[in-house]
Amino acid sequence: MVIYADNAATTQMSATALEAMMPYMCGQYGNPSSLHSVGQAAAEAVQRARENVARCLGCRPNEIIFTSGGSEADNQAIVSAAKIGERRGKKHIISTAFEHHAVLHTLKKLEREGFEIELLPVGEEGNITAANVADAIREDTCLVTVMYANNEIGSVLPVADIGKVCRDRGVLFHTDAVQAVGHIPIDVTENNIDMLSLSAHKFHGPKGVGALYVRQGIALTNIIEGGAQERGKRAGTENVPGVVGMAAALDEACRNMDKNAERVTALRNRLIAGLSKIPHSTLNGDKNNRLPGNVSFCFEGIEGESLLLLLDAKGICASSGSACTSGSLDPSHVLLAIGRPHEIAHGSLRLSLCESNTDREVDYMLETIPQVVEYLRGMSPLWREKISGNKQFILR
Amino acid sequence: MVIYADNAATTQMSATALEAMMPYMCGQYGNPSSLHSVGQAAAEAVQRARENVARCLGCRPNEIIFTSGGSEADNQAIVSAAKIGERRGKKHIISTAFEHHAVLHTLKKLEREGFEIELLPVGEEGNITAANVADAIREDTCLVTVMYANNEIGSVLPVADIGKVCRDRGVLFHTDAVQAVGHIPIDVTENNIDMLSLSAHKFHGPKGVGALYVRQGIALTNIIEGGAQERGKRAGTENVPGVVGMAAALDEACRNMDKNAERVTALRNRLIAGLSKIPHSTLNGDKNNRLPGNVSFCFEGIEGESLLLLLDAKGICASSGSACTSGSLDPSHVLLAIGRPHEIAHGSLRLSLCESNTDREVDYMLETIPQVVEYLRGMSPLWREKISGNKQFILR
Repeated sequence: MVIYADNAATTQMSATALEAMMPYMCGQYGNPSSLHSVGQAAAEAVQRARENVARCLGCRPNEIIFTSGGSEADNQAIVSAAKIGERRGKKHIISTAFEHHAVLHTLKKLEREGFEIELLPVGEEGNITAANVADAIREDTCLVTVMYANNEIGSVLPVADIGKVCRDRGVLFHTDAVQAVGHIPIDVTENNIDMLSLSAHKFHGPKGVGALYVRQGIALTNIIEGGAQERGKRAGTENVPGVVGMAAALDEACRNMDKNAERVTALRNRLIAGLSKIPHSTLNGDKNNRLPGNVSFCFEGIEGESLLLLLDAKGICASSGSACTSGSLDPSHVLLAIGRPHEIAHGSLRLSLCESNTDREVDYMLETIPQVVEYLRGMSPLWREKISGNKQFILR
Repeated sequence: MVIYADNAATTQMSATALEAMMPYMCGQYGNPSSLHSVGQAAAEAVQRARENVARCLGCRPNEIIFTSGGSEADNQAIVSAAKIGERRGKKHIISTAFEHHAVLHTLKKLEREGFEIELLPVGEEGNITAANVADAIREDTCLVTVMYANNEIGSVLPVADIGKVCRDRGVLFHTDAVQAVGHIPIDVTENNIDMLSLSAHKFHGPKGVGALYVRQGIALTNIIEGGAQERGKRAGTENVPGVVGMAAALDEACRNMDKNAERVTALRNRLIAGLSKIPHSTLNGDKNNRLPGNVSFCFEGIEGESLLLLLDAKGICASSGSACTSGSLDPSHVLLAIGRPHEIAHGSLRLSLCESNTDREVDYMLETIPQVVEYLRGMSPLWREKISGNKQFILR
C-alpha cells in the first residue's frame, strides 16, 4: 500500500484534466498564433480555458495571463508592482516572514535593487491581521504581497480584510494563492485582490502551467520577452494542453469544493486529534483556521528527514517542510517564523490530504506514525530515558 | 484533406513522446523535490531526460537547464551574458537583424538598460559570415547571439565558424537553435557554443517545455526566482511529463535525423522547383543552405493573409511569416532584413514540412498554390492586366 499524503507538494492529475488535455496532445496540435484552422482551433481552446479560469476566480478573461507555473506568476506580479512603484518614487514593499521562496527570493532581488522590504512577523499560530498590514503601510508603499494560505502549516490568511485595507489605502495587493486555489473559495473582485498567482498541479491539474490574475489597468512588466502571446505580456507559444488541463481541473475542483472540503477536513481533523496524542508533539498553525487538507506537526527529539524515510518505507508519502526546499539542511523558514526553535523545527512532519485519501489510510497513518516517532526517539539515549524508561524499540 | 505545412510554427507530438509522458501524467505524479519514493521516481525521470538531452547536444547533463520553452531560454541566456559583461565593464552585444523576437526584444530591453546592441545586416540570401562577426567584435563585446537557423526563411547560419571566432576572442556565444535542434546535426562542444536555446514542440515534443544548454562555469542569472530546482537557476516544480516527452522526442528526432532530412529535403526541393515557376515569385533564403523542411516565397501583387485564408479553405495549413507575429499587420522583419521591399514582403508564404508530409500532399500544393496566387492577383485590376490580359479568374 502506498498512501500519498503530500498533496501540497503536488497532486495526481484528475481523469477530467487528462481527458480534456488529450485532444490537444494528439490531433488538435496547432499553434494558437497560426491563422489557419488548425491554429485557430487551438486558439479557441486557450480562450475557453481563459474564460473558465476567470469564472472560477471571479474576474474577466482578459485579466488572466497564463504562465509556466506559480513561481513565474509570483515573480511577474511582484516585479511588475515594483516597477510601477519605482516610476512613482515608491519603493517600500510589505510581505510576511513565511511566504514561499518564489516571493521571498524575488523580494530579496528587489532589495538588492534598492527596494525596502518589510517582512511582517507572523504569530505563533502562523497568522497576521489586516491591522498588522494597515500599520505597516507608508506613503511610499507600492505593494503588499501576502500569501492566501501557507504551504507548510496551512494557515489561511485574512486576505479579504487585507485586500480591503490595501484598496482603501491605494496600495497594490498581490496574493500567492498557490495552496488555496481549488481548495477554498476565492473571489478576487469581492476580496479586492489586484494580482493572484496560482499553479495547476496543486489542484489535480498538470505540472508546468499556472496563471496570474492581474486586475485590468495594472501594467505588467514582462519577465519573458518575445512574441505577442498573452496580450504581449508573456512570450512563448502557449502550452495549449496545459492550460486546457488546468482549466478543466480548476472547474472540477470548484464545482466539488464544498463536498471535497468537508470530506478532507474530517480526515484532517482525525489525523490532528490522533497525532496530538504523541507526547512532546505540537501542532503547527491554528487548529481550525487552516487549509482543509493540511496537517503539520513538530515532534521533539527527532529529525524530519529520518522520519520521512522511515514513513516512506512504511508506504506513507509525506513531507517535512515544503517540497521546494527539501534539498536543504536548514530548518524551514516557516517554522522558524512561527517561533519554533531550530532543534524542534528540524523534527517537522507535513501530511497534506486530498479527496481521494480514505479513512482507512488515516487509520494506518495513526497506527504507524506514533510507532515511527517512538522508534526514532528510542535511538537517542537522551530521549530513550526521557520518554520510556529504556524499553526496547523495534520498528515492525 | 488537411495538409499541415506549418511545422516551423509547431509540430504534432510524436507517439513516442506521448507514450513516454503518459506514465508521468498518471501514476508517477510525484514532485521531484519530495524525498519519498513517489517523488524520487519523478526525480529519476527528470535526470534521465537531462542525460538524454545532453547526449543529443554533445554536452554534460549538468549543463542542461529545463525551461518553459525557447523564449524563456533565450531570455535567460542573453540576460545572463549581459550581467556577466556588465560586471566586467563590457556592454556591447552583437546579434543579427533577423533573430526571433525572443532575442530581439530581450536585446531591446538591455538597450534601455544601457547596453549597446549591434545588429549585423544579413545579406539578400539571408546569411552572415563568421568574418562579419569577427569584424564586429570589440574589446567591450560581452556576447554574440546568432540564431542557428532562421524560422521564416530557413537559412542555416555558420554557427561552428562563429563559435570558433568567439572562443578565440574570448566572447560568449549564444545561439537560438529553436528551429535547428532535432532537424540538423548539432554538437555544442565541437561548435564552441557557450549557450543554446531549444523548444520541444518544434521537434514533435510537447508544448510548454524547452531547455537552455549552458557551458559549465558560466554563471546564469535567474529570471524566475524561488525554489532550488535546476541547481538553483530556474525555480518552479519541474514539468516532469514535459521534460520526459521532450527528451523522448529529441532522442527520436536525432536517431532518425539523416533519414528524415533526406526525405523532407526531397519534398522541399520539389515544392521549391514547382513554386518557382509562378511568375513574379522569389524564393527567400538560399536555395541549398537551408533547413530541410523550409520553403519560403514572396509573390508580388498579393497579400499574405488572404493567401493563407484561401489556402486554409483548400485544406492547406501554411504561414506567412512566423506564427509568433501573425497578429501583426507589419511585414516580417526577417523579409525586410534580407532586403525585400515592404509591398513584396507582405506577399510571403512559408511552407514548413516534416517527415510525415507526403509526395501526394506536395502534388496537391503544387496544383493549388499557383491557382490561388493567380486568383488573388486577378482580383487586382493592375495585376489582372499585367499577368494575363483580363482572363476570368475563378477559384475552383
